[in-house]
Amino acid sequence: MIIAVIGLGLIGGSMALDLRQRGFAQTIVGVDNNPIHTLKALELGIVDVVLPLNRAVAHADLVIVAIPVQQIIAILPDILSLIPPHAIVLDLGSAKEAIVESIREHPLRKRFVAAHPMAGTEYSGPEAALSGLFDQKVAIICNEHESAPDAVQIVEQLFATLNMPLRRMEANEHDMHVAYISHISHISSFVLATAVLEKEKSVNTIFDLASGGFASTVRLAKSSPQMWRPIFEQNSHYVLEVLDTYLSHLQHWRQLIADQQFDTIEKMMTRANEIKRVLDR
Amino acid sequence: MIIAVIGLGLIGGSMALDLRQRGFAQTIVGVDNNPIHTLKALELGIVDVVLPLNRAVAHADLVIVAIPVQQIIAILPDILSLIPPHAIVLDLGSAKEAIVESIREHPLRKRFVAAHPMAGTEYSGPEAALSGLFDQKVAIICNEHESAPDAVQIVEQLFATLNMPLRRMEANEHDMHVAYISHISHISSFVLATAVLEKEKSVNTIFDLASGGFASTVRLAKSSPQMWRPIFEQNSHYVLEVLDTYLSHLQHWRQLIADQQFDTIEKMMTRANEIKRVLDR
Repeated sequence: MIIAVIGLGLIGGSMALDLRQRGFAQTIVGVDNNPIHTLKALELGIVDVVLPLNRAVAHADLVIVAIPVQQIIAILPDILSLIPPHAIVLDLGSAKEAIVESIREHPLRKRFVAAHPMAGTEYSGPEAALSGLFDQKVAIICNEHESAPDAVQIVEQLFATLNMPLRRMEANEHDMHVAYISHISHISSFVLATAVLEKEKSVNTIFDLASGGFASTVRLAKSSPQMWRPIFEQNSHYVLEVLDTYLSHLQHWRQLIADQQFDTIEKMMTRANEIKRVLDR
Repeated sequence: MIIAVIGLGLIGGSMALDLRQRGFAQTIVGVDNNPIHTLKALELGIVDVVLPLNRAVAHADLVIVAIPVQQIIAILPDILSLIPPHAIVLDLGSAKEAIVESIREHPLRKRFVAAHPMAGTEYSGPEAALSGLFDQKVAIICNEHESAPDAVQIVEQLFATLNMPLRRMEANEHDMHVAYISHISHISSFVLATAVLEKEKSVNTIFDLASGGFASTVRLAKSSPQMWRPIFEQNSHYVLEVLDTYLSHLQHWRQLIADQQFDTIEKMMTRANEIKRVLDR
């Protein structure tokens, strides 16, 4: 199979590595706006050749779109118009409703499959690409009923090759869940890092006093602003909902501390401990 | 040296293990209110013998107090009254001002050294004790001028044995810094876990959709409520201050998202990325 990978960063690069190593792809054609990324991807053996978008797409059996959400929305209609009739377009964006909306009326809508692999690290670019990144992580396919069955079948085979268990849901349902489970974690980290950096002028002091707990909670603040901006933008409805929930819980805590209600605080921490059921599986 | 360790949990247990293995302690006498902890500590070779507090302290050269802050405040005056004249009492509590206050007028104040080793994990109890837990982490000595020079010297040797670089500061300064760098991280994790558990009734959904980022930001929500309640209680002044700072930054973000000011959000994320200077050292 000839696969065109649009976006040679952490996600596109990691997927290209494993799809070739595991025999799913015979040829991988890379596309990236950033010439340094394309050179690096060639050097690291992530892609066989780099081509402009229109040429890369014209001969592909499968096009994987692994770029920030905003850019997916901007070029997805063009990609669908450029592919051969049998080809399939798969996107990996983190906010699905706006993407699915952007091509709802496209005559080739059925050749498109919307998906989201729940994997990543806080690093970006082709140097961050990792073989095995997706193993045992869940992949979500959204609005499956809007895609052609043969297109979904190829995508299922792709995720099976990556050892990813599959879940299926509607795009809006997906967006709500990821706001609660992923997006708010990133906001919480970005804001925590900002608050600490503002107060503690000395990086030395932070370094000295930061035990492992600090590093863990602010790790996501290292994430790429270019990747996250469009996610927050495209999923702002649910991001605002979860931010309000988070804010109201925090304000409740603040009030309990101000009122010296530490019995209640202790009970709330005990309830929060239930997260062990998720983390210690 | 005969060392009495009061509190055979993660911190007391880990310290006992390394102080013996590295030849600093010849005999370790353990004290713990929880009979299961004392049995486990004997079984794991953390302590040589378990005794009631008054008997353990009466023959010790050094008493290490590694229990929750509230309990330190409750028994520290008694411990100081029970030790032999040459002995030293060292506490390891996470909020120092209230502890230092509690024995400010004690006739044996100078035999006491207030310290805080910046190390830990989200686990607790003697089974959680780890050799090497303190290596290369910073230890803070507070209000050194209120302790006898020979007492400080022994404590310096103890932290050198644990391979801990030393910092010195006043108790209130310590409490402010740890509120910003450690306590708020815990609150943010506890609250994030609570918000997600409340919204996502199905642990399976959380598990499926949680990538590494979620696990990292909520890991601290597994921490012991019995340990953290007294820290928040004793350091409530600075905890409220940092919570208010964090809340106002979060509200600012919320407003920027509501107003679709994503250029500003992107700039703020770029500033937050500076935390790399701390995390990637």
